[in-house]
Amino acid sequence: MQPLRLLLIILTFYTSSVFAQTGALVLQTDFGLKDGAVSAMKGVAYGVSSQLRIFDLTHEIPAYNIWEAAYRLQQTALYWPVGTVFVSVVDPGVGSERRSVVLRTKSGHYFVSPDNGTLTLVAQQLGIDAVREIDEKKNRLPGSSRSYTFHGRDVYAYTGARMAAAVIPFDSVGPLLPASVVSIPYQHAEYRKGTMYGNIPVLDVQYGNVWTNIDEQALSNLHLQYGDQLRVRIFFRKSLIYDGVMPYVTTFAAVKQGQPLAYQNSLMNLSFALNYGDFAAKHKVRSGPEWTVEVQRK
Amino acid sequence: MQPLRLLLIILTFYTSSVFAQTGALVLQTDFGLKDGAVSAMKGVAYGVSSQLRIFDLTHEIPAYNIWEAAYRLQQTALYWPVGTVFVSVVDPGVGSERRSVVLRTKSGHYFVSPDNGTLTLVAQQLGIDAVREIDEKKNRLPGSSRSYTFHGRDVYAYTGARMAAAVIPFDSVGPLLPASVVSIPYQHAEYRKGTMYGNIPVLDVQYGNVWTNIDEQALSNLHLQYGDQLRVRIFFRKSLIYDGVMPYVTTFAAVKQGQPLAYQNSLMNLSFALNYGDFAAKHKVRSGPEWTVEVQRK
Amino acid sequence: MQPLRLLLIILTFYTSSVFAQTGALVLQTDFGLKDGAVSAMKGVAYGVSSQLRIFDLTHEIPAYNIWEAAYRLQQTALYWPVGTVFVSVVDPGVGSERRSVVLRTKSGHYFVSPDNGTLTLVAQQLGIDAVREIDEKKNRLPGSSRSYTFHGRDVYAYTGARMAAAVIPFDSVGPLLPASVVSIPYQHAEYRKGTMYGNIPVLDVQYGNVWTNIDEQALSNLHLQYGDQLRVRIFFRKSLIYDGVMPYVTTFAAVKQGQPLAYQNSLMNLSFALNYGDFAAKHKVRSGPEWTVEVQRK
Repeated sequence: MQPLRLLLIILTFYTSSVFAQTGALVLQTDFGLKDGAVSAMKGVAYGVSSQLRIFDLTHEIPAYNIWEAAYRLQQTALYWPVGTVFVSVVDPGVGSERRSVVLRTKSGHYFVSPDNGTLTLVAQQLGIDAVREIDEKKNRLPGSSRSYTFHGRDVYAYTGARMAAAVIPFDSVGPLLPASVVSIPYQHAEYRKGTMYGNIPVLDVQYGNVWTNIDEQALSNLHLQYGDQLRVRIFFRKSLIYDGVMPYVTTFAAVKQGQPLAYQNSLMNLSFALNYGDFAAKHKVRSGPEWTVEVQRK
Repeated sequence: MQPLRLLLIILTFYTSSVFAQTGALVLQTDFGLKDGAVSAMKGVAYGVSSQLRIFDLTHEIPAYNIWEAAYRLQQTALYWPVGTVFVSVVDPGVGSERRSVVLRTKSGHYFVSPDNGTLTLVAQQLGIDAVREIDEKKNRLPGSSRSYTFHGRDVYAYTGARMAAAVIPFDSVGPLLPASVVSIPYQHAEYRKGTMYGNIPVLDVQYGNVWTNIDEQALSNLHLQYGDQLRVRIFFRKSLIYDGVMPYVTTFAAVKQGQPLAYQNSLMNLSFALNYGDFAAKHKVRSGPEWTVEVQRK
Repeated sequence: MQPLRLLLIILTFYTSSVFAQTGALVLQTDFGLKDGAVSAMKGVAYGVSSQLRIFDLTHEIPAYNIWEAAYRLQQTALYWPVGTVFVSVVDPGVGSERRSVVLRTKSGHYFVSPDNGTLTLVAQQLGIDAVREIDEKKNRLPGSSRSYTFHGRDVYAYTGARMAAAVIPFDSVGPLLPASVVSIPYQHAEYRKGTMYGNIPVLDVQYGNVWTNIDEQALSNLHLQYGDQLRVRIFFRKSLIYDGVMPYVTTFAAVKQGQPLAYQNSLMNLSFALNYGDFAAKHKVRSGPEWTVEVQRK
């Protein structure tokens, strides 16, 4: 679990400014920024309400990478106020039988997405309050019903914008579904007999840092002090990719340039880096549900 | 012609929210996002009115690629409300004799651009209502008159922002020109004796799908049913680049992974793809006015 | 010095629209746009005030490149109204002893940044009015105090947003420091015995043009007329990288395709380019404090 205390403090902080008439609309896709697809989505949203505040999460999700879409939502959602509507369109199965849904989490955030695994992590982290299937007969850009392939614009952006702008309430999205979403399996943070097990959900791509899903609470099982040495092993499926020792520190500057270190990243999860270097590139580490780590105190 | 019914329906949908005091300003350039040029344009626009809503179409047009700029405007414009002001700056001839103009289309959208071919497709698709040359004596960021090379910021963004913010009406842009724009020649969608001819205006770059300009109405000449097999040939100038057969389907999932398919894209134009693959990369297909396709029912 | 006349004219132009209740918040980082970091910063800022106008300068500063961060601020700041708050996060020393500061320039702009050289150029160009150290006890996202590494979100974006939204005045940022910032040394524009000396602060990356810091006033020492031939030499440290002759012209179209030219860029600084070509790539020229140019009239 992610730190609930953090959540509560943030919610308190945000509460005063939250219930403006309209919420923010935050868009995530794997469309890239080279063509007009994202702009068309924004045009549709702006057409719903010229007062709507529209932001980007990222549009650089690698094509079809549902796992990374899931991670980016989790990484970001808590920093946006309650009532924010996220629209995520990473949809390799567009046109097939996956459902189009809106998830309302217990934290009060909304996620509009194909139900294809994208919601795995926010559902686990923020809790499922309710899931509704989008009724495309009612919630679809007028005039678009003969377009087969751009749900992102015609259904998701349109529906997300109408919710964020309070044109429709959550109840009007469509019928209530059972309170679950399609989930991708992965190694949860887990402590057994002196070893922490976890997953590498994502890399800090710009710098090549390796992020795990081992949060503060899980890590506390190792009773670490800053300066302690850790043995870190990284696996892809069953193959050992990296095996090394590094200190657990509070700042990159605690080790020499090029040296490895373990630290808590900005999400308070255990991470590995090289000071002024690229850990992932040097050791050929990548991320996803099939990557696991094992960490022991030395 | 693009589907006029779609246009009409969208216009009806938007009409209520359109005539707010200010319209959106949508920017397109080939500047990329690595330097400060786009931000300087936005600073100038924000300086005109802090209430202005400023959006990006894309800033990743390949350097000097006027054709792609033309296509991105066409791809996107109809999804923005009437009254939206587009500023497009792809300007290899900056400083030479091309005119700086504002096009108002019959659909009620505005396009601020060098008149160098960028307006080819929106003029044809949306119709020319009026074209005015920008009078740079009146419509230029104060203090910028000795800067020779950044029309995008000093003239186009400034003028577009003043129109979008209703600081000046269209009439104040400058003198009326004849109702035409500089146009780039290309193969229009055309049916002759069992063969559809068309152009590849652009690739769906993120996925490698190949988009044509053959719209629904043109395609109807082939009397296709879903599941029919198509013979598709692709040419660069006179050279045959691809020759293959694929089914015409409504969803990528209708064929196996890696197999080709023909479908209508989100603009309702005939397109070619590999399911979970990159058609353009595999077959070395690119786009532009010199690329043509020939399609027959098998 | 950059042209003060330009500054004065722009200030006059902007004054009327400046003192709205809130200013713009403009973000610059080396985070890239592939992950959720920038979005988290924007979420925090939006949480401070849903009315805040939030923009990007760029997030594509090369990782850890403080010099380029400094240049992008200088390139852009004057085109944003007085009162704009810039947040720049290029922070290789995060967690070490560099100070977190807010600089108010004599032009009335605000810069929130680690004091690591990022403020070198705006301090010189716009003048230092006052520098305050951020008191992180008071100016930090509630609930974030145990996160060590994301000052960009928890301190800089949060503090910048609160200033831009007028939640806190500049005085509440923290204690006043001496009126100076950490500065990176480089070759200032200088004229000696028929030769202009200068620096290549940055490339016009999208096109490969080479920009210098030789402004109009400095250049006037050469008494150039358009059409004059210049001898241009480019050095990295002490090594000669390029030595050539080119005309000084007002427009790229003044020379044939592929030919070199010297011109004043949009910042009114002397620059070198190939018409329809990439000068920097062809001649292996890069930029930074260690690159210098020498220019003579032929």
